[in-house]
Amino acid sequence: MKIEIPREVERFGPIVFHGVQKVYELDSGLRNAKNDKDDNPIMKRIAYDTQHEIQKQMAIVVPIRNEKIKLVEGVLSGIPHHCLIIIVSNSPRFPMDRYKLEKDAIEHMEHFMDRDILIVHQKDPKLGEACAAAGYSHILDKNGVVKDGKAEGMILSKILAYICGKKYIGFIDSDNYFPGAVMEYVHEYGAGFTMSNSDYTMVRISWHSKPKVVESNLFFAKRGRASEHTNRILNRLISSFTGYGTETIKTGNAGEHAMTMDLAMKLDYSSGYSIEPYHYINVLEKFGGIIANPSEDVMNQQVEFFQIESRNPHLHEVKGDQHVKDMSKAAMECIYNSPICPEALKENIMEDLITRKILPKGEKLGNNLNYYPALENFDLRKFKDVLKNQEYAGLFKDKLPEFKETKVSKPLRDTKMAKERVLPEKGKLEMK
Amino acid sequence: MKIEIPREVERFGPIVFHGVQKVYELDSGLRNAKNDKDDNPIMKRIAYDTQHEIQKQMAIVVPIRNEKIKLVEGVLSGIPHHCLIIIVSNSPRFPMDRYKLEKDAIEHMEHFMDRDILIVHQKDPKLGEACAAAGYSHILDKNGVVKDGKAEGMILSKILAYICGKKYIGFIDSDNYFPGAVMEYVHEYGAGFTMSNSDYTMVRISWHSKPKVVESNLFFAKRGRASEHTNRILNRLISSFTGYGTETIKTGNAGEHAMTMDLAMKLDYSSGYSIEPYHYINVLEKFGGIIANPSEDVMNQQVEFFQIESRNPHLHEVKGDQHVKDMSKAAMECIYNSPICPEALKENIMEDLITRKILPKGEKLGNNLNYYPALENFDLRKFKDVLKNQEYAGLFKDKLPEFKETKVSKPLRDTKMAKERVLPEKGKLEMK
Repeated sequence: MKIEIPREVERFGPIVFHGVQKVYELDSGLRNAKNDKDDNPIMKRIAYDTQHEIQKQMAIVVPIRNEKIKLVEGVLSGIPHHCLIIIVSNSPRFPMDRYKLEKDAIEHMEHFMDRDILIVHQKDPKLGEACAAAGYSHILDKNGVVKDGKAEGMILSKILAYICGKKYIGFIDSDNYFPGAVMEYVHEYGAGFTMSNSDYTMVRISWHSKPKVVESNLFFAKRGRASEHTNRILNRLISSFTGYGTETIKTGNAGEHAMTMDLAMKLDYSSGYSIEPYHYINVLEKFGGIIANPSEDVMNQQVEFFQIESRNPHLHEVKGDQHVKDMSKAAMECIYNSPICPEALKENIMEDLITRKILPKGEKLGNNLNYYPALENFDLRKFKDVLKNQEYAGLFKDKLPEFKETKVSKPLRDTKMAKERVLPEKGKLEMK
Repeated sequence: MKIEIPREVERFGPIVFHGVQKVYELDSGLRNAKNDKDDNPIMKRIAYDTQHEIQKQMAIVVPIRNEKIKLVEGVLSGIPHHCLIIIVSNSPRFPMDRYKLEKDAIEHMEHFMDRDILIVHQKDPKLGEACAAAGYSHILDKNGVVKDGKAEGMILSKILAYICGKKYIGFIDSDNYFPGAVMEYVHEYGAGFTMSNSDYTMVRISWHSKPKVVESNLFFAKRGRASEHTNRILNRLISSFTGYGTETIKTGNAGEHAMTMDLAMKLDYSSGYSIEPYHYINVLEKFGGIIANPSEDVMNQQVEFFQIESRNPHLHEVKGDQHVKDMSKAAMECIYNSPICPEALKENIMEDLITRKILPKGEKLGNNLNYYPALENFDLRKFKDVLKNQEYAGLFKDKLPEFKETKVSKPLRDTKMAKERVLPEKGKLEMK
């Protein structure tokens, strides 16, 4: 892969938001290939061997729920061989056991592909038991099984990737029609991790375009319908602290994203469609130095966000307007309810939701999201122990990586920058 | 890439038609990667390093004519870095010089991609002069420039790939919306060449599906509209000699195809949309042992056809019904007029064309195609010499590969097999 070096960078305490990077070549060859001009000052070449090294340490999570099997098969064929595939299904088990169908189909593919695929059902009682053993009952319902919801499935997959000893975790939607696009996303995750200097890195995909059927023709729209609004509000949130307008954030709702396990373990998560924008919010809350003090390690290494514009258009199953509205509302809700959200921005959010008829005039935006604490605070070895007799337990690593110690550093908000610029509206903020 | 081993094989004298092969993984890692199970008896793993070796010896040709620049940019980004890109444009040069726009845009990309792209205009008088110098005036019009037409552009690109010293040549349509699909095709070309034992190999892509807009939704059709008919007739042609019904040929109209330069140099070409189906016909004519005697080298090595089913759907610019009819008519014409086409099959062709209203009842199918002789008979060094001062001449190789001697071998039609099975309807055939 050949990718431009980020042209814009937004810094926020120890957080670095890189501007969107354009991909120039999907396949740029091997590290020691001839014709190799690595010294191009504006372009980064990520050789295939480098990608391969990262892929061996990466889990790719594909959440599924009632997707067509043919579609899922295509997605799996696009995931590079050396990634571990983790499938978390939340398809119904009765009246017909759809999960069984999925498992059969995937095991059939696994056989031909000669690779290991970890497939679990989100509501498997054993997984609920394992969460409880680790003390992580937050994502369980009253019956002791993992709640419905994409976010809860994603958190579960993070635990699984961790106990499989992976260093990176990436997410791929299961309804993508183009295996070639899936492969591209995984290579872009690898590109981001290669470019990063930090153990705390997130890579988010900005789709090149989203083809839509308009009057029997295809129209290639630049942004998704919800993203535009989420991005605007996120950028305004950053501006209101830094004092400079910005348009850097373009991936507020990015479903296609990946992160280092080190970062994944440190983040809190929110439920539903808000999980993706909340990554930004939570990093700002935890590491931005506004209301909490980042650990020394995070301060030294920084947290890096990469936003990569895929070359392939994103063609997936058509979703209705209600889906877009739900997505937008959840995104706004998690920003609105953050302790770092200034009052002025809350007004912007309300205006946006009312103008778009997502919220009736006069109604207040509640806080209906669930928030889940970071996994680093729980004993995931106990989670693993409960599953030791499961058929997939062979994929687990004997020795799990240790979490880095979270030392409290000198409070950022006492610094000159914080006093003068970081908190221009501190009177209006609700402090923790 | 991981690909199934062909399950069906159709043999015809020294010609081997492999049945369609399904791709299981787009990216199967490096040659010496761990977890490597190369011994899978039904699956062939083509490691990335193997692909890379082939790509360094491959020219990828992208013929363009008035395509949107953005679309072409996407296509180029999908072509692996180490392939030589050859663009043959036949876009109009006035009233506006579209070719200049294309050249500018492509040189801009070239700069960012750090690679060489050979771009020429089909009607460049210098190229016409070069053809004439080589004695290959067949593709020239009365003004001494190369004729309009995709086939003529393709032949030109073969000469260029040859004088650039390439061993393989592959074609990619310039109107593909998915760079990931383009990359897949190139990897499939590489897979075919890796699986082949012969210097005379062709790889043809069978699209996984072609999405069409049907009532504001996408429908994934299995085959193109023209292909179905072309394939049926081609299969019937083979059956009428072998005596066994077959459905092996599924890529009669495959625009996405690649071949070894050794084969490219030996084939005759026909004009217009018939060029792709004529590859099959001409190989049967020249090497099938029916009406001509293949050289000893071809007899020993065989001619191998691979048909690979891409994983990505094929989403390209929408073309009208007339395009499909023209394509179908041209395909049928080149089969109908072949000296190896049995009378019974000619009747089938007429029925097909009349039923589909491509030919009015009572009208005869003419022979309006142009046929161009194989390039091996011409002195392409003279072609190269004429271009020695052109800006792109730096890409040419000093020493050109020699063509293999074409020794006439023992006539196949004298063999027992030929007498009993190969020519069951020889009374009806017009022999050369």
